[in-house]
Amino acid sequence: MFQLPRGTRDFTPEEMQKRIYLEDSMRNTFQTFGYREIQTPMFENLELFTAKSGEGIIEELYSFKDKSGRDLTLRPELTAPVIRFYVEQLQMEPKPLKLFYFGNCFRYDRPQKGRYREFRQAGCEIIGTDTPEAYAELIALAYTLLKNSGLKDLKLNIGNLNILSAMFKKLKITKEQQKQLTTLIDKSQYNETSQLLQDFDVKQEEAEKFIQTLQTTEIKKIKEYINDEQTKKEFDFFEKILQLLKETFNIKNYQIKMGIVRGLDYYKGIVFEIDAPSLGAEKQLAGGGAYELVSLFGGKETPTAGFAIGFDRTIIALETEKYKFPTESIKTYIIPVNENTIEKSLEITTKLRNQGISADIDLLRRGMSKSLKYASTINAEKTIIVGPKELEQNSVTLRDMKTGKQETVKIEDIHKFLE
Amino acid sequence: MFQLPRGTRDFTPEEMQKRIYLEDSMRNTFQTFGYREIQTPMFENLELFTAKSGEGIIEELYSFKDKSGRDLTLRPELTAPVIRFYVEQLQMEPKPLKLFYFGNCFRYDRPQKGRYREFRQAGCEIIGTDTPEAYAELIALAYTLLKNSGLKDLKLNIGNLNILSAMFKKLKITKEQQKQLTTLIDKSQYNETSQLLQDFDVKQEEAEKFIQTLQTTEIKKIKEYINDEQTKKEFDFFEKILQLLKETFNIKNYQIKMGIVRGLDYYKGIVFEIDAPSLGAEKQLAGGGAYELVSLFGGKETPTAGFAIGFDRTIIALETEKYKFPTESIKTYIIPVNENTIEKSLEITTKLRNQGISADIDLLRRGMSKSLKYASTINAEKTIIVGPKELEQNSVTLRDMKTGKQETVKIEDIHKFLE
Repeated sequence: MFQLPRGTRDFTPEEMQKRIYLEDSMRNTFQTFGYREIQTPMFENLELFTAKSGEGIIEELYSFKDKSGRDLTLRPELTAPVIRFYVEQLQMEPKPLKLFYFGNCFRYDRPQKGRYREFRQAGCEIIGTDTPEAYAELIALAYTLLKNSGLKDLKLNIGNLNILSAMFKKLKITKEQQKQLTTLIDKSQYNETSQLLQDFDVKQEEAEKFIQTLQTTEIKKIKEYINDEQTKKEFDFFEKILQLLKETFNIKNYQIKMGIVRGLDYYKGIVFEIDAPSLGAEKQLAGGGAYELVSLFGGKETPTAGFAIGFDRTIIALETEKYKFPTESIKTYIIPVNENTIEKSLEITTKLRNQGISADIDLLRRGMSKSLKYASTINAEKTIIVGPKELEQNSVTLRDMKTGKQETVKIEDIHKFLE
Repeated sequence: MFQLPRGTRDFTPEEMQKRIYLEDSMRNTFQTFGYREIQTPMFENLELFTAKSGEGIIEELYSFKDKSGRDLTLRPELTAPVIRFYVEQLQMEPKPLKLFYFGNCFRYDRPQKGRYREFRQAGCEIIGTDTPEAYAELIALAYTLLKNSGLKDLKLNIGNLNILSAMFKKLKITKEQQKQLTTLIDKSQYNETSQLLQDFDVKQEEAEKFIQTLQTTEIKKIKEYINDEQTKKEFDFFEKILQLLKETFNIKNYQIKMGIVRGLDYYKGIVFEIDAPSLGAEKQLAGGGAYELVSLFGGKETPTAGFAIGFDRTIIALETEKYKFPTESIKTYIIPVNENTIEKSLEITTKLRNQGISADIDLLRRGMSKSLKYASTINAEKTIIVGPKELEQNSVTLRDMKTGKQETVKIEDIHKFLE
């Protein structure tokens, strides 16, 4: 017997129904915000991702050589491919470009709950604007996508990497040391962060103050920690974004968190994350912010920002909240009483389908009771029983599968009873 | 600058619009026929495809080893994964199982018009029934999917591999010889087929008769060529399918074609292909039939049939027929006249979006004329101009982008003018 590759999944009709629902909901919200859908290939040249994230990332990739010796890789994320697409083809488009996408991504990771080797992401990029209203709208979009999908319990954290950089600078932390520290900060391992700061010759008292600033949710306290001229401008811009988010986009329940680090290499300024607290360790549903990749990929520098949403985790979060997904049902199931009524039954089925009504029909020539049982397993709302006597009167028996009520209906009137 | 991998594509918003339209249309038709959607992973264990198609297929695959040394491959088609899924998880489901899917597939092929290394397929399988009405419905579904997508010029050819096998048997052609012959027949290279038959010691006259039978569209003539007892049963069954297709599914413009060979290894009985004649050499849009794979994959044998539709070629066929795809437009674009009206403009935008109206807003603080130009490039139906004087009256200026007509509208009434 052949098996599903490790870390991947097959999706049953019941699962697909949830996924199609979520994708439709998200597509609709993206479009409402003026975003337009694009798509890029499932694999890319390997160097696209090593240029962005360093050689270290190869460890986590499904990379391979094609038959001409090219180094390719299944994409681990979608921002790099989209910016590659932008640089290759879309630089002359009117700005801002608001692009969204859905796509499967791949990571060679240890499979665990909520983490798969093939996973789906929704995401977007906005290219060509760096106004506070653009960033506020981006955060509002991420939050609204998840809200509109039906999630109730969401936690929005907003940080700022320019301010975080200034905090590091104040402690005279080098770029190399930052990398080690942010790995710990990213996992909220603050004791270890404090210890490492002291290893880097920061006094214990200073280290503690730094850690407290990472953890506070009050902008006032961050300002008390750092308040040079340059950082003041950053605070003004940051607070403008927060004010617009609250007052014009109506998103009020966010928290400030300087401990959001993401990829310090190419993220700049505003960063944010949205969690579903019910999910425990794997609670992050969305993350994004402003970043710089265009010039690295050979394009003319322009402001860029975006975010990604974990599609699979959003499904799990909805399930955890016991969200009632729309249930699929088929309008009607047609049962020929015997072989002599098969052809008439097929005609009726075809007519209903042509009217856009979902209609299935017994294709196994089984008895009435088995057919009724099958009709209920496929969630048919009504069954149409086609018997020879009724046919003589150009009629059929229509049965409501919930109430069990039956009535005789003229063939030409069936659709009226189904709409 | 980084480049798109050879043979793959990026899709612009205009192209994605067509693709989303086609997928929605097809999903709707599949559901109308009582099919349910599933999905399988983008890669599979390599042996799944070599078991089905032989080691020769490796040449055409994107196969690779993962970091644990497993032989994996990007899937070249979707029937094998779906039957693998069925055998692993769905064997106990009530029959018949009617499953459909969309998915990208990959072949290491020389890129050319209408052939890409990454391409999209739509398809379905019906598992657990072998009645003539089941096969007739399957062919009707393939045809209806393409018709409902908007295609006008379609050519449906129907063949039968059991009858073709009987024809080979009559000429005492071995299995090995059949393989060589079907490669030629598949490409309609009938002169070469005739020559090869003669190389296999078939008399020229007999070879010519065989070729004529492959090419005739009249069942009567095929019956004149071959009419043993066993084949008579095949003809009866075949003609019953054709009769149901014509009389109960209303699909009348098909042609008989014994020269449809597909994969003689696992296809059995009925086979069919649908072409878009306008596309020239790459004209085949859909192909399928009855086949046997379940027991090869370790499951309990049960009848299976299905088909695949080339999604990309269907798009090309629609474009060739100049089909008018639905055009995307954004309902309204909001323009703050100056920086003082930005916040009110954002509020109006948020309110409209919350009402489900697609609304975009100037995020670059540019002048009125540039904003109007941008609004027209994104196909906005109306613009809302937010100026300080109008705001004093709780009003804005609403401009119709087609007619250029402007009117003053109360903020609370805007949605009425947009719906």
